[in-house]
Amino acid sequence: MKKYDRFLDLKNGRVDMTHGSGGRAMAQLIEQLFARAFDNPALAEANDQARLDHHLLHHEGSRLAFSTDSYVISPLFFPGGNIGSLAVHGTVNDVALCGARPLWLSAGFILEEGFPLAQLAEIIESMAEAARHCGVQIVTGDTKVVEKGKADGVFINTSGVGLYDASLDLSAKNIKEGDAILVSGFMGDHGVAVMAARENLTFDEPVLSDSASLYSLIDAMLKTGADLHALRDPTRGGLATTLNEMAQTAGVGMLLDEVAIPVRESVRGVCEILGLDPLYIANEGKLIAFCPCDQAEPLLAMMRVHPEGRNAAIIGRVVKDDQHFVEMQTTLGGRRMVDWLAGEQLPRIC
Amino acid sequence: MKKYDRFLDLKNGRVDMTHGSGGRAMAQLIEQLFARAFDNPALAEANDQARLDHHLLHHEGSRLAFSTDSYVISPLFFPGGNIGSLAVHGTVNDVALCGARPLWLSAGFILEEGFPLAQLAEIIESMAEAARHCGVQIVTGDTKVVEKGKADGVFINTSGVGLYDASLDLSAKNIKEGDAILVSGFMGDHGVAVMAARENLTFDEPVLSDSASLYSLIDAMLKTGADLHALRDPTRGGLATTLNEMAQTAGVGMLLDEVAIPVRESVRGVCEILGLDPLYIANEGKLIAFCPCDQAEPLLAMMRVHPEGRNAAIIGRVVKDDQHFVEMQTTLGGRRMVDWLAGEQLPRIC
Repeated sequence: MKKYDRFLDLKNGRVDMTHGSGGRAMAQLIEQLFARAFDNPALAEANDQARLDHHLLHHEGSRLAFSTDSYVISPLFFPGGNIGSLAVHGTVNDVALCGARPLWLSAGFILEEGFPLAQLAEIIESMAEAARHCGVQIVTGDTKVVEKGKADGVFINTSGVGLYDASLDLSAKNIKEGDAILVSGFMGDHGVAVMAARENLTFDEPVLSDSASLYSLIDAMLKTGADLHALRDPTRGGLATTLNEMAQTAGVGMLLDEVAIPVRESVRGVCEILGLDPLYIANEGKLIAFCPCDQAEPLLAMMRVHPEGRNAAIIGRVVKDDQHFVEMQTTLGGRRMVDWLAGEQLPRIC
Repeated sequence: MKKYDRFLDLKNGRVDMTHGSGGRAMAQLIEQLFARAFDNPALAEANDQARLDHHLLHHEGSRLAFSTDSYVISPLFFPGGNIGSLAVHGTVNDVALCGARPLWLSAGFILEEGFPLAQLAEIIESMAEAARHCGVQIVTGDTKVVEKGKADGVFINTSGVGLYDASLDLSAKNIKEGDAILVSGFMGDHGVAVMAARENLTFDEPVLSDSASLYSLIDAMLKTGADLHALRDPTRGGLATTLNEMAQTAGVGMLLDEVAIPVRESVRGVCEILGLDPLYIANEGKLIAFCPCDQAEPLLAMMRVHPEGRNAAIIGRVVKDDQHFVEMQTTLGGRRMVDWLAGEQLPRIC
């Protein structure tokens, strides 16, 4: 018996409730769209779970890294990427930031009835391409459909599993007084690119999302042998909020140097006009690194050689502060508090 | 510095956009609600990924099982559970069905602006309780908020990781002609319970969802030493669709015995009135097992001793069929096709 009489109409078709039913239409969607794009042996077994093996799993010192993120970004397509590539990069990065090699992703889709299959196919293709580029496999998945008006096009959850060596201990709690604070490049690109797409703003020099995998940069940083204490990506809430979170976890203060923080002129300009602060704007392909002060310069030099770290900079240092404040030496010579993001600058940025 | 001035108002508060911003309000929600309920060392590290170790990870024959599911069930609360307990049981089961011991879950929440915090707290507490009962830890998570009207209360994604021994090979592709087909209990309870809640139907004898962890039953089944070929839970699409999927994967046919399939009288009654077929209705705490015919009776006897297998039954056998049909010997003595679910009987059942 043929399971389906015809192929999905990927040009003009739309998601309907039967695509989430568990029945024939769902099997068709999975087979003709997801399984074809994500093609790998674990997925091809068509079980409800992926069964996985990797030589790193059998190293005595191997430990597991596990992370999850749901993506609800609006709009779904933006300069420099779409929800699909973002969902791969974002979770790959969260796994990699503890020094793990990301290996496997899951993908859970919540589709709104009526969503165009052509757009879904484009998103899936971006996911597949991003996964290939990151060296990870999308090994298990799930598709749900909700009625029109009960979601917003597509939401994607990706969870990621990777392996790292127990000799590594990258964690916010290891940040110490005297550590240097580095960032791998320009702050604010992702948020400004998404906002521009949302508001139909045009710039002379278009700002692209920085959505990208950080694994290769992290791997190169680890290979320098620098004593990295912690890595984190400044996504929602931006650099300012992420540093506050980390200061809180580590029980330290931080002092930033405003003039050292890399922000593109175009991003700075947009932010000034719209009354936004680039330090609170999400990044999706940048990291913050903490290491002992005396190792910062050689680490920086190496980062700048890497394509994802060309505009890296040392932006401040960790100080003793029982109140765990993040403060900033301003360009004008003063000092100001860099507080947590209090409200909501840009909703649905990731 | 105190991060927040006050506690969340869990009695009258509602989710607002700031709870998804990455800022202070989100940190408060995570700390006062999620981290408190799910409390474990990996989560407490407050990194963007959980770093995990387990003695099973270091067994030479250990393999990884990885599964994901998004839950969009409506209504969120139903007789026998809610979206939180369901999200734990469902993913724990998908991991366990390859013989793995489920160890770790991720939890990704998509919250609709305006959703009552009291209901969210109840859902979180159910998740935490279900996780404790299953012996798994919720080690990493994510929270997103979308505007009112862009989701439907709460959607939850859980992904699960477990470990199994490479000597086990439970997979649909291993199903063989001559295998017995067993189910662990009554079919259709979950779907009918949810539909009753949705439609405000009342029965003399209320039908409860069967949402439960199958890990303990599976573990007991494995310990009998029976040569299990495959296990699967008949969720969306019910028994009929799941068997068709498996027949397709294994390249076999199946012949069921209608009279042997356990269905509660109350469920059968509701289905008759509403024109539904219990074989297409979702279950959330039942499994289908395939093993050589001669091992089926002792396996069945053991299953019936287990609380989750009291009403287990042998319901049919695997036959040679190049067309991969699932057929059924009916109570009236005839034979009919049991096809894939074609349309959508009950949307948003899980």
